[in-house]
Amino acid sequence: MAAEISVSRDDIDGIAAWTVIRAARELARMLAHELAPLEISPVEFGVLAQLAAGDGLSQAELARSVGVRPQSMTALVSGLEGRTLIARGSDRGRGRLSQIRLTSEGRALLARAYPVVRASNGWFGDDTAGVDAVRTTLMPLLGPTSEPARDVP
Amino acid sequence: MAAEISVSRDDIDGIAAWTVIRAARELARMLAHELAPLEISPVEFGVLAQLAAGDGLSQAELARSVGVRPQSMTALVSGLEGRTLIARGSDRGRGRLSQIRLTSEGRALLARAYPVVRASNGWFGDDTAGVDAVRTTLMPLLGPTSEPARDVP
Repeated sequence: MAAEISVSRDDIDGIAAWTVIRAARELARMLAHELAPLEISPVEFGVLAQLAAGDGLSQAELARSVGVRPQSMTALVSGLEGRTLIARGSDRGRGRLSQIRLTSEGRALLARAYPVVRASNGWFGDDTAGVDAVRTTLMPLLGPTSEPARDVP
Repeated sequence: MAAEISVSRDDIDGIAAWTVIRAARELARMLAHELAPLEISPVEFGVLAQLAAGDGLSQAELARSVGVRPQSMTALVSGLEGRTLIARGSDRGRGRLSQIRLTSEGRALLARAYPVVRASNGWFGDDTAGVDAVRTTLMPLLGPTSEPARDVP
């Protein structure tokens, strides 16, 4: 049971998944700082952007596309709804999935937030090599997540 | 104020920071699944690995190197301490930072977890191109985080 294990800092840095997880925490902190003046968090930005890209998503589809647990999505959606940045469709309670859409206030806030977030690509280097590498390497992991199922009844 | 903003799914996928954040959530879920039989979470693995790489870190240094908030670290450390996977040094309360170290049980668990986590590099493709791209692109963002300050008194 006295297993001998030697793990160096270089071994740790060689675990790609762990590097992505640590980098994501750092990037979320940096994005949160940039977005703070707009009083919006990175994940709230994600919700608004996903709705702009595909209006009329259900809460479950939204959770999947933003990558948060469905349970966490309820508080997130309520918060944005309370600030009238998003609204639920009127088909609620009629046995159909409630669709969520951007309001004009939400669209206006997104118009201010998008360039701020887009500028973060500069953190990956002066040319597009870093941004391209992220896309090529990490997008395949997101496969179905980035394209929420649209065939709801 | 009726800002016109058009954001496509492709625009969203072009934001590297957001892709890293979404991929990290997916990878954390996948790693958690792999590590579940060992009853250890990805971030707990990170703590054990960091301690193996540099024994005798303070709680604050550990938080920085693993990338979690100092507040979250307290519960994390207590949990691992309760399972006798880590132990605090005896210099606590003598005006010095309490150093944390791996116990032999912690080292044994890490010996079982490390190959499991290391195998996750396979998720980035059959060759090392994906793993190398992650390292080249994301490690610079972690600069000081991955090398906790060691000059404690």
